[in-house]
Amino acid sequence: MRARVTVTLKAGVLDPQGQAITGSLKSLGFSGVSAVRQGKVFDLELGETDPAEARLSLAAMCEKLLANTVIENYAIEIV
Amino acid sequence: MRARVTVTLKAGVLDPQGQAITGSLKSLGFSGVSAVRQGKVFDLELGETDPAEARLSLAAMCEKLLANTVIENYAIEIV
Repeated sequence: MRARVTVTLKAGVLDPQGQAITGSLKSLGFSGVSAVRQGKVFDLELGETDPAEARLSLAAMCEKLLANTVIENYAIEIV
Repeated sequence: MRARVTVTLKAGVLDPQGQAITGSLKSLGFSGVSAVRQGKVFDLELGETDPAEARLSLAAMCEKLLANTVIENYAIEIV
């Protein structure tokens, strides 16, 4: 089973990397871009066959390793 | 208009970061994880109102800055 975990910064958390990308895009001529926020995506290959079990296991992985839940949100998608 | 760009490594491109995460998850007890590949996600706020125009503009941003198209694929989603 394949799954995708998307980790993004919570609203209000400063994202200097995103600000740098916004600036770079503007200087490349993309003036319509008002904000960029960067996050991470993890594509996982799991042995689990039950989607509900897989979700539980993925949530535990996010809490323990993949996301810093103080400043980041995570979304789990079974694909 | 908001858009999400997901940038992932092409198949066959070595992903040492993903391998390190796989190892860490296994040592944390998640033995069912056989592979992890890490990518990036960009959430953009655009002034553009036409979705087709926005897609064209986003593809140009990916080609010029957001993705290294030699080793990475990108996917554009209007949200």
